[in-house]
Amino acid sequence: MPNLYNRIQGRSLERLAALSDGIFAFAMTLLVLDLHIPTAAQVHSEGELLAALGGLGPQWIAWGMSFLTLGIFWAGQQTQLNHIGDGTRDLTWIHLGFLFAVTLLPLSTRLLAEFIRYRSALLIYWLNILIMGAMLYCSWAHATHAGLVKDDTPDEVRASICKRILIAQSLYAGGAALCAINTWVSIGAIVLVQLNFALAPGLWWRKEH
Amino acid sequence: MPNLYNRIQGRSLERLAALSDGIFAFAMTLLVLDLHIPTAAQVHSEGELLAALGGLGPQWIAWGMSFLTLGIFWAGQQTQLNHIGDGTRDLTWIHLGFLFAVTLLPLSTRLLAEFIRYRSALLIYWLNILIMGAMLYCSWAHATHAGLVKDDTPDEVRASICKRILIAQSLYAGGAALCAINTWVSIGAIVLVQLNFALAPGLWWRKEH
Amino acid sequence: MPNLYNRIQGRSLERLAALSDGIFAFAMTLLVLDLHIPTAAQVHSEGELLAALGGLGPQWIAWGMSFLTLGIFWAGQQTQLNHIGDGTRDLTWIHLGFLFAVTLLPLSTRLLAEFIRYRSALLIYWLNILIMGAMLYCSWAHATHAGLVKDDTPDEVRASICKRILIAQSLYAGGAALCAINTWVSIGAIVLVQLNFALAPGLWWRKEH
Amino acid sequence: MPNLYNRIQGRSLERLAALSDGIFAFAMTLLVLDLHIPTAAQVHSEGELLAALGGLGPQWIAWGMSFLTLGIFWAGQQTQLNHIGDGTRDLTWIHLGFLFAVTLLPLSTRLLAEFIRYRSALLIYWLNILIMGAMLYCSWAHATHAGLVKDDTPDEVRASICKRILIAQSLYAGGAALCAINTWVSIGAIVLVQLNFALAPGLWWRKEH
Repeated sequence: MPNLYNRIQGRSLERLAALSDGIFAFAMTLLVLDLHIPTAAQVHSEGELLAALGGLGPQWIAWGMSFLTLGIFWAGQQTQLNHIGDGTRDLTWIHLGFLFAVTLLPLSTRLLAEFIRYRSALLIYWLNILIMGAMLYCSWAHATHAGLVKDDTPDEVRASICKRILIAQSLYAGGAALCAINTWVSIGAIVLVQLNFALAPGLWWRKEH
Repeated sequence: MPNLYNRIQGRSLERLAALSDGIFAFAMTLLVLDLHIPTAAQVHSEGELLAALGGLGPQWIAWGMSFLTLGIFWAGQQTQLNHIGDGTRDLTWIHLGFLFAVTLLPLSTRLLAEFIRYRSALLIYWLNILIMGAMLYCSWAHATHAGLVKDDTPDEVRASICKRILIAQSLYAGGAALCAINTWVSIGAIVLVQLNFALAPGLWWRKEH
Repeated sequence: MPNLYNRIQGRSLERLAALSDGIFAFAMTLLVLDLHIPTAAQVHSEGELLAALGGLGPQWIAWGMSFLTLGIFWAGQQTQLNHIGDGTRDLTWIHLGFLFAVTLLPLSTRLLAEFIRYRSALLIYWLNILIMGAMLYCSWAHATHAGLVKDDTPDEVRASICKRILIAQSLYAGGAALCAINTWVSIGAIVLVQLNFALAPGLWWRKEH
Repeated sequence: MPNLYNRIQGRSLERLAALSDGIFAFAMTLLVLDLHIPTAAQVHSEGELLAALGGLGPQWIAWGMSFLTLGIFWAGQQTQLNHIGDGTRDLTWIHLGFLFAVTLLPLSTRLLAEFIRYRSALLIYWLNILIMGAMLYCSWAHATHAGLVKDDTPDEVRASICKRILIAQSLYAGGAALCAINTWVSIGAIVLVQLNFALAPGLWWRKEH
C-alpha cells in the first residue's frame, strides 16, 4: 500500500489557511523593509526631508500596488478555501506553489521599484501575478474535479470563481501589454484594475440605483 | 449575476483575524530590527557600551511608543471583530486598508527615530495613527450600517466604540498639535495618552473607591 | 458609563494566543538573521569555511541559548493561557508587556553575541529574562485574583505555576550572579538551567525508578 | 509533587501548530530576502538586467530547493499532528527541536548559495535536513510509545509514517553522498527526490492505469 501516506497527507485546511495567513502577513510587512528612508546625515531641513521622501515616488507606487496585489490574492484564496470541504495532498501542493509565488512578490516589487522604466522588470512583475492567478485557477479546477467543493456551494458560485480569475488575468495581461507604450502607462492600468477589484465601484453604483 | 463573486468574498472573519495577528506580530517584532546596537569595534569598555546604548535614546522612545501604538490598535481591532458576526468584502477591504497603515508604522517609527526633532517626521507619524483610527471608525460604521454587528451586542457597546475612537483621536491630534512648541513635548503628550489607554489608571482609581 | 469600553476589551484569548504565537515565531526565526556567515570573497577553501563557521562560536551559543529561552517562555505562557477561561483588558496588557520583552530578546541576544565578555551585556540579557518572568508572574497573579482561572483547574496547579516561575527566576538570577567570576561561567550556568527545564532529566530519572 | 508542572505543560497542540505555521511561514518568506537583485547603478540596459538576474543562478536553485524542503517538512509535520490527539511536554520539546532546525534552514540555504561548489556547505545543508527528519521520527516514535495517537488511526498509517521518513532520509543521504562526484550532481539528486515527494508522479501514473 505505497500510496497510503499520500492519501493521509494534507487533510488539514485550517493549517493550510494558517500558513497562508502567515506568509501573506510577512510578505505584506516585508514590502515596507524595502522603502529606504533618507538618513539624518543626508538631510538638513524639514524641506529637504519632504523632498527626499517625495523622491521615493517609484518605491511608494510599487509598494502600494503590491499591497493591493497581495490583498486581492489573499481575498481570492480565502474565498476558494471557504468553499472547499476537504483537503488532499494535491490541493496542498497546488497552494504551496501559489504561496511560493507569493513569497516572490516582495522581490518582484523590489525589482520593479529599482528599474521602474524597464519593460523586463514590469513583465517579471506581471509574470508573478500570472503564476499566482494560474495556481488559484488550478486549485479550483482540482477541487471541482476531485469533488472537494462543499455540497452547499451553489452552481453559480462554482462557475463564478474560475470566470473571475480569467477576467482578472485578462485585464492584467492587457495592462502589462501596455508597456509597449511605456511602463508608467502599464503600471497605471494595473493599479486601476486592482482598485476596481478592491473598491468595486460598480457594486456601489448598482446599490444606489 | 456579475456581483455574485463580491457577495461570496470575505466571509471568513477568522482568517481576517489571523492575517491581522500575523501583521501585528511582524510589525511589533520589526521595530526592534531598527534598533542598531554598537559593534565591538566601536566600544572598548563596559562604560562605553552603556553610554552607547544610552545614546540610542530617541530610538528607544520611538520604539516603545510604537509598540504601545500597535498594542492599542490591536486591542481596538480585536474588540470590534469580537462583536461582528458576519464578514463582507467591504469590511475585508476596510480592514486591509487598516492593515496597510499598520505595515507603514515601522517605517514611520524609523523616520521619527532618525529625525526626532523634525515636525514633519512627527506629523507623518501622527498621520499614520490618524489613518489607523479612521479605518477602524469606518469599519464599525460599516458594520453597524450593514447589520453585521452581533445581535447580543448591547446598545451602549455600539455607541462606545465610535466614541472611544473619537476621544482617542482628539487626544492624539492635540498631542500632535503640541509640536508647535517642539517635538519632544508632542511625543511626551502622545506617550501619556497611550499609557492612559494601556494602563487605564482611572479604572484602577475607580475600583479602589 | 465611561468604563464600558474597558470592560468589553480584550475578551478574546484566542487572538492573544495567535498574536503571541506570531511574535514568538518571528523572534525565533529572527535570531538566525543575526548569524553572519562568511562571504565567498573571504574564504578560499573548505578548511577555511569550516574554520570561519567555527569562529562564530559566541554567536552560535547566544543563538542556541535564546532559542531555548523563547521555547521555555512560550511553553510557560501556553500553560497559563490553557488554564485561563476569560480574558480581560488588564490581562491583555500584561501579556502585551510580556510580548514587548519577547520582541526585545533578539536584540539582547545580538548584544550578548557582540559583547560576550562584557558583564553589562550579560546583565541586560538576564534583565530581559527577568522581565518576561515577572510579567508571567503578574499574569497568573492577576488571573487568580480576578477569578479568571478555569474552574476545573486543581489547586495544586494554581500553586505550582507561581512556584515554578519563582524557582526558575532564582536559578537564572544565580546564574547571572556568576558573572562576578566571568561571563562564560554565567552563560554555562544559564544554559544548564534551561536544558534542565527543556529536557527535564529529573523527570526521566524518576520514570525509570 | 514536583512533576506536576511538567504534566500540565504542553497540552495545546493547536498552539504548537500555530507556532509551527508562523515559523514555517517566516522561514519560507525569509529565503527571498537573501536573493540580492542588482542595483540600478550596476545595470544599464534591459539585456544587462536579464543577464544579471540569470547570473544569480545558484541563489535561485538554493532558494527553490529550500522552499520545496520546507513545504515537504511542513506537510510531514501536519500529517503527524493530525493523527495525534494529546500533547505532552516531551512532544512539545521534540517539536521545538524540529522548529529549531527549521529556523536554521534559511541560514544553511544562504551558506549553500554562497558556496555552492563546496562539499562542506552541501553536507551542512544535508545535516539540516537530517536533523529535521530525525526530530519528526522521534516525534512519531514518542507519540506511538506514549499512546498519544488518536484511536481512529489505522495500523497501516501508524507504520507508514516512520517508514516514509526512513525512505526519504535514505534518498537524501544517497543524494548527499553523490557530492563525492561534485555538488551539482548532489543538488540535482536532492531536487529530484523532493520533486518526487511534492509532485508524486508515481501516484498520478497509478491513477491512470
